[in-house]
Amino acid sequence: LDDTGNIVTEKKAEESHRQDSADLLIFILLLTLTILTIWLFKHRRFRFLHETGLAMIYGLLVGVVLRYGIHVPRDISNATLGCPVNASPATLLINVSGKFYEYTLKGEINANEVDNVQDNEMLRKVTFDPEVFFNILLPPIIFHAGYSLKRRHFFRNMGSILAYAFLGTVISCFVIGLLMYGCVMLMKQVGQLGGDFFFTDCLFFGAIVSATDPVTVLAIFNELQVDVDLYALLFGESVLNDAVALVLSSSIVAYQPQGDNSHTFEGTAMLKSFGIFLGVFSGSFALGVATGIVTALISFFTKLRDFQLLETALFFLMSWSTFLLAEACGFTGVVAVLFCGITQAHYTFNNLSPDSQDRTKQLFELLNFLAENFIFSYMGLTLFTFQNHVFNPMFIVGAFVAVFLGRAANIYPLSFLLNLGRRNKIRSNFQHMMMFAGLRGAMTFALSIRDTATYARQMMFSTTLLVVFFTVWICGGGTTQMLSCQRIRYVKTFMETFFSAPQGCFIFKRPPLRVGVDSDQDNSVSPERRSTKQESAWLFRIWYNFDHNYLKPILTHSGPPLTATLPPCCGPLARFLTSPQAYENECQLKDDDSDLILTDGDINLTYGDITVSTDASGAHTSGGAAFAGAATSDDLDRELTYGDHELVMRGTRLVLPMDDSEPPFTDLHHGMRM
Amino acid sequence: LDDTGNIVTEKKAEESHRQDSADLLIFILLLTLTILTIWLFKHRRFRFLHETGLAMIYGLLVGVVLRYGIHVPRDISNATLGCPVNASPATLLINVSGKFYEYTLKGEINANEVDNVQDNEMLRKVTFDPEVFFNILLPPIIFHAGYSLKRRHFFRNMGSILAYAFLGTVISCFVIGLLMYGCVMLMKQVGQLGGDFFFTDCLFFGAIVSATDPVTVLAIFNELQVDVDLYALLFGESVLNDAVALVLSSSIVAYQPQGDNSHTFEGTAMLKSFGIFLGVFSGSFALGVATGIVTALISFFTKLRDFQLLETALFFLMSWSTFLLAEACGFTGVVAVLFCGITQAHYTFNNLSPDSQDRTKQLFELLNFLAENFIFSYMGLTLFTFQNHVFNPMFIVGAFVAVFLGRAANIYPLSFLLNLGRRNKIRSNFQHMMMFAGLRGAMTFALSIRDTATYARQMMFSTTLLVVFFTVWICGGGTTQMLSCQRIRYVKTFMETFFSAPQGCFIFKRPPLRVGVDSDQDNSVSPERRSTKQESAWLFRIWYNFDHNYLKPILTHSGPPLTATLPPCCGPLARFLTSPQAYENECQLKDDDSDLILTDGDINLTYGDITVSTDASGAHTSGGAAFAGAATSDDLDRELTYGDHELVMRGTRLVLPMDDSEPPFTDLHHGMRM
Repeated sequence: LDDTGNIVTEKKAEESHRQDSADLLIFILLLTLTILTIWLFKHRRFRFLHETGLAMIYGLLVGVVLRYGIHVPRDISNATLGCPVNASPATLLINVSGKFYEYTLKGEINANEVDNVQDNEMLRKVTFDPEVFFNILLPPIIFHAGYSLKRRHFFRNMGSILAYAFLGTVISCFVIGLLMYGCVMLMKQVGQLGGDFFFTDCLFFGAIVSATDPVTVLAIFNELQVDVDLYALLFGESVLNDAVALVLSSSIVAYQPQGDNSHTFEGTAMLKSFGIFLGVFSGSFALGVATGIVTALISFFTKLRDFQLLETALFFLMSWSTFLLAEACGFTGVVAVLFCGITQAHYTFNNLSPDSQDRTKQLFELLNFLAENFIFSYMGLTLFTFQNHVFNPMFIVGAFVAVFLGRAANIYPLSFLLNLGRRNKIRSNFQHMMMFAGLRGAMTFALSIRDTATYARQMMFSTTLLVVFFTVWICGGGTTQMLSCQRIRYVKTFMETFFSAPQGCFIFKRPPLRVGVDSDQDNSVSPERRSTKQESAWLFRIWYNFDHNYLKPILTHSGPPLTATLPPCCGPLARFLTSPQAYENECQLKDDDSDLILTDGDINLTYGDITVSTDASGAHTSGGAAFAGAATSDDLDRELTYGDHELVMRGTRLVLPMDDSEPPFTDLHHGMRM
Repeated sequence: LDDTGNIVTEKKAEESHRQDSADLLIFILLLTLTILTIWLFKHRRFRFLHETGLAMIYGLLVGVVLRYGIHVPRDISNATLGCPVNASPATLLINVSGKFYEYTLKGEINANEVDNVQDNEMLRKVTFDPEVFFNILLPPIIFHAGYSLKRRHFFRNMGSILAYAFLGTVISCFVIGLLMYGCVMLMKQVGQLGGDFFFTDCLFFGAIVSATDPVTVLAIFNELQVDVDLYALLFGESVLNDAVALVLSSSIVAYQPQGDNSHTFEGTAMLKSFGIFLGVFSGSFALGVATGIVTALISFFTKLRDFQLLETALFFLMSWSTFLLAEACGFTGVVAVLFCGITQAHYTFNNLSPDSQDRTKQLFELLNFLAENFIFSYMGLTLFTFQNHVFNPMFIVGAFVAVFLGRAANIYPLSFLLNLGRRNKIRSNFQHMMMFAGLRGAMTFALSIRDTATYARQMMFSTTLLVVFFTVWICGGGTTQMLSCQRIRYVKTFMETFFSAPQGCFIFKRPPLRVGVDSDQDNSVSPERRSTKQESAWLFRIWYNFDHNYLKPILTHSGPPLTATLPPCCGPLARFLTSPQAYENECQLKDDDSDLILTDGDINLTYGDITVSTDASGAHTSGGAAFAGAATSDDLDRELTYGDHELVMRGTRLVLPMDDSEPPFTDLHHGMRM
């Protein structure tokens, strides 16, 4: 009897394991299928559907099959305990005729769901614990975003990015929250609301749908080499607002007024929530930056670069430990990982051996790709397999309107205010593009699926899913059309031809052609650079100087030696902290931050400026004769479709030395004269 | 009340998550510390301690701290259910005053452990579910082993490797099983046995400690460039015998005679076990090879190589799906992954773009490194944190003797038999080295921790742990001493100097110097190669011809075109299946299988042969004058310590064109004459 019981238990565990493997296999095969299809698309140059959108479609199809195609008989291995229990402990020991079995708490189940649990075993099996997203899938995505942030342009536009990400997300959150509260009130009047829906719920909804994820748009930007400033603004905003939305939503959840009437406004609870927001955000930020700096110091003081495997492993482990440390301290791991990624890219990356630089980039690129497509295919799947959907037409329409208005209330007023201070204005077509590129993605989904216990949360989840589907498919798919409609120049075929064979070297080694605004490059030599720097914000200048003169020399093997930047009284300290490599750098300052895409972008920027300026000021459109044909949107379309090679020839004439501190149309003349 | 209950549950879940993060953080920091220390060791050229050994030491230290240093107060969140239940279902729903909570079965707990469970929360927290090893940590290790199998030398020694891995493991299993049964009988007589210990348990113990894992030894071999045949024999054996031991142990567990007296011998049950062994092994083998071939075909027929990220992702996903597929079908995922790795290396690897070849190699190298060190540090930790250790001195001594004799019964008789058929004999010093390199590692540990429910299994686990510690530290640390003691030549400094700057190209492009026995290279041109091929076993020859003429052209872009190898009647089919690249290959057959290490090894082999032959036949030691000094073990030691550069100059003279089909001493003369 003893043995037979054991065998039955083992058999059950084995069966469950086999089922788990089969479920995971579904996703792996889905991803494989996505990869093959997306290869076909890329091969045939279809650009209307991104791999994430495709992953969702495949997920949807599999979801339909699982829901309607496969019938799994009622699983009899579940049992509801009849005897009265007073608590729900995390671990439960159950005495079955003298043998003890350990059970762990999985979660609460709605009373009306109890029957479902036993019926739809198959559907429940393919449902992951939502914490999987926060602990396994999101960290590599967010770290990759931080690690691949185009640093020079990010720092140059830092003020605007921070404004969009912080102020903008909060504005968007409250606008959406208020609009949804109105919508919910209306629904209550009409009698369409089937459960509680408080103002905090509305705000929570506002927070989760404020996290933009323009991965689809940025992929096309990258491919088409669209303006780097626009790219930096969009990418920087989306990376940071994920973090803001995450912390914001958790501090809204933490809003707990005392007393019976727990859903009213209360000052102290509000302040406490605000304190939590600040504390969690700054704590996560500090932790992320700290581990980044520790990694930089380790790679600075050891000669780990001789052993690439150890170096890569250390880099990976330190980045992972940021996440765990933040979670263990009660901060937000995903936010910490983001700032860790930025710090690693800014400092540690310079200390790595070239081989490890490639390895780490490729590793996180792969992890990001897999995690992202996994999430999106799961999203598609969950539309059919999630069993507590609440699709409410009024709420859905309200949400779409609110999301649209929330995004508008973020972009347009802030852009207006920022343009007052910016010399390099954010033009209206850029603003429209940013408005359009407010896609919702992985973070929104993860936040909405994290808790689907109440009616309000279930309705939010179903609506969020639709918002994500709509934005990814429609906005993502229409990016190229929107770009040409907004007359934002992109110069793909030109760039491809220009930088065909001897990439990299070609750009860096041709001295007379100064490309773009290398504000990160050096600050000592060329006087025409200084003009660029003067137009940057004072905040950025202070940070840049401090970073370049003190942090970089201390933390990396690049940058000027400390002996040159510190006052003479600190001589011995400076000599101790300066690595031998730094002295070599003194003469020929390597631009360690620049990578090829950046520099491509730089040229592109100047080119883009000209084109757009012709649009903006109208009269100048026919100013450059060689150029007139290319500027009309018809020609743009033609180039898009046929990859017009004539344009390439015309295009090359325009890339000539020019100083981008002058106004754009002077630029054009200047360029033409040379 | 409703809300408060929710909040308490949420708080509990949060607390548990924070604790989990902190526990995982311990391991990450342990690995980081291991990496830094091992860097220091490599930097200072200490070779007596491998990173896995070091990981174990750090694990031990942390285990001591956790056990004796940290006091965690009794966790009150556990509760034992009083009410009588009749079954132990996989999922349990518990009704706590109207709310339903879901619990999942974690496993059975010994009755005498129930108090422990509630006392030592901290120690239980750092204990992973053993299935983590089989589902997360072992697959990348085993795949990497398969993927990095040095193919040419593996296939050349395939017969011997299969003999050691299959016959040898079975011999070792039964020898150890019988010896341990004797030991257990003796313990019963003396009254030292505290529980049941059946013959099947002894056999199970024999199976789990028969899986060798000479990773420590092979790392030193690799670093010192020891004889490639010895490397191939040891590595191939250890890779395959992991798979054999895994399947063997599971078929021993499956031995279930009918009736009451369930631990007696019964023919049908025995046959059934044997059938399970064959079925599971061949099923896993077939699945692994099949997915490997599917991946090869996909990469053959698509032009995925234009998009390296997609290519790498596909490769990764397909390899992972092998594991899941095998598990879902009831086969053994780890075994399937091994053969998938071998197939991927043999076929798919040739279709990948150079960039993806690097990426996939580096990715699995990193995963292997992390997983391996994680397992070894967990091993160290578990010596103190595992709570059901049964250390029985008699059993431990018996086990060490049995493991030693079991290894001897594997290596020496089989080597004798194999030498009857081998032309390239396995010399006695190689046999001693193989005997010595019978380390036990990750697989043995994972198998022994998988089930620690009974007294017998607990005693096995504790003993296995000691066997692993001893072999990794003593045998692993003594490898260099053993090598010089057995006078197995290694030529590190020579190789380093010889292949210093223009690696790869230098070797491949110098036509007159034919290095080693490139039996995998081509089979058509050079007549002196044919002699090499004639000494290979007929089995290998048949396989090689079939593989080279038909499989490689169909599955990869390398190899001769099918039009050349298929009979003329199959012309149209051959033309359809042959890729354009293959025709280019027809004139200049690329050796797609060779990588630098292999070719280094080849030269090394001829050099190694000579050295060893002088040891073996005594009289020849002074045959080569320039060589005499290096052959004595004193000089060997000196070279080891000081990196003697004189030897380098002497060494180079010996690497000259030679035909290794002639006997070694003729080789030497031949070499000297040229």
